[in-house]
Amino acid sequence: MSARVESFELDHTIVKAPYVRQAGTQKVGSDGIVHKFDLRFAQPNVTNMTPPVIHTLEHLLALNIREYAEAYDHFEVIDLSPMGCQTGFYLIVNGSAEVSEIIDILEKTLNAGLEYDYVPAATEEQCGQARLHDLEEAKTWMRYWLNQNQKDLEEVY
Amino acid sequence: MSARVESFELDHTIVKAPYVRQAGTQKVGSDGIVHKFDLRFAQPNVTNMTPPVIHTLEHLLALNIREYAEAYDHFEVIDLSPMGCQTGFYLIVNGSAEVSEIIDILEKTLNAGLEYDYVPAATEEQCGQARLHDLEEAKTWMRYWLNQNQKDLEEVY
Ligand SMILES: [Zn+2]
Ligand SMILES: [Zn+2]
Repeated sequence: MSARVESFELDHTIVKAPYVRQAGTQKVGSDGIVHKFDLRFAQPNVTNMTPPVIHTLEHLLALNIREYAEAYDHFEVIDLSPMGCQTGFYLIVNGSAEVSEIIDILEKTLNAGLEYDYVPAATEEQCGQARLHDLEEAKTWMRYWLNQNQKDLEEVY
Repeated sequence: MSARVESFELDHTIVKAPYVRQAGTQKVGSDGIVHKFDLRFAQPNVTNMTPPVIHTLEHLLALNIREYAEAYDHFEVIDLSPMGCQTGFYLIVNGSAEVSEIIDILEKTLNAGLEYDYVPAATEEQCGQARLHDLEEAKTWMRYWLNQNQKDLEEVY
C-alpha cells in the first residue's frame, strides 16, 4: 500500500469474481502489521451491486464480522468498507490473517446475515441514509457467495 | 473500533456536514496505532453524493492524499473508502493524526483534484467499473468542500 494505490495495479480484466484476495500489508509501529483484503462479489466491468445492496451488506458485514473474527486471536477487524466501483468490499485487519481465515469468517458472517428480517442500525440516528437499503437483494448476493466452493474463492485468476 | 461499529453509535441527526471527525483509534502491535477519520461531505439523511461522484472522488482522493500525507512524518495513509450511505469517506491512517492535519491534506488533495481533466485509472484494467464516473459533478463537491472555513470543518455538531 503506502504511497500508491494497490487496486490501480490489479488487472481487473483477468480476475474471476467472486474471490478473496490479499491486497496489501503495511507495518504499524515497531512490530505491528495491518493486512488488507479485497472481497470481490461482482465481476469487474461486467456486473455490480446496487447502492441499496452495498449499503445493506455494509451494515450486516460491519456489524457481524468483528464477532466472528474474535474466534481468531492473531488478528482483529479494523474496517470493512465498500468499493466505489460497486463490485466488492475492502476488509482491513490488525495482524496477519490468511485468505482462508477471511473466507471462513465471511462465510459465518453471511450465514448470520441471512437470518435477519430487518437491516440493523437502519435508522436516521444510526445511519447516514436510512432509506437506502435492500435486504432481499442483499440476501440474493449473500446466497450467491455462500453457494461458491471455498477453494474457488481463493482463486483470483 | 474493535468489536463494535463506531458509526452506529454516532447520532447522525445532530451532526452538521461537511466536517472531519476522529472516528476511532486502535492499537496495533506493541506500540503502533491506527486512527480512523469520518470525512463527511453530505448531510446525513438530507442529501447524498451519486455513485459516479463517489467513485470519481474515491479515485482522486486515494491517488493523491497519500502524497500530501508524506509532508507529515508521524502518520501515513492506510486506506480511503466511501461510506455505503453515500455521505462521505473513511480515512484510516497509520499513526496519530490531528483533525486539523487531515483537513490540511484533504484541502491540498481536493485542490489537486480540481486540476484534472480526466479521471485517473478509469480504465477497465485499473478499475472495477470504468464507466461509473462523473468528474464535473465531483468537482462541484470538491469546490463545495473548499469553500468551507477550515475551522468550521472541525465542528461536528
Ligand atoms: Zn448506513
Ligand atoms: Zn474505480
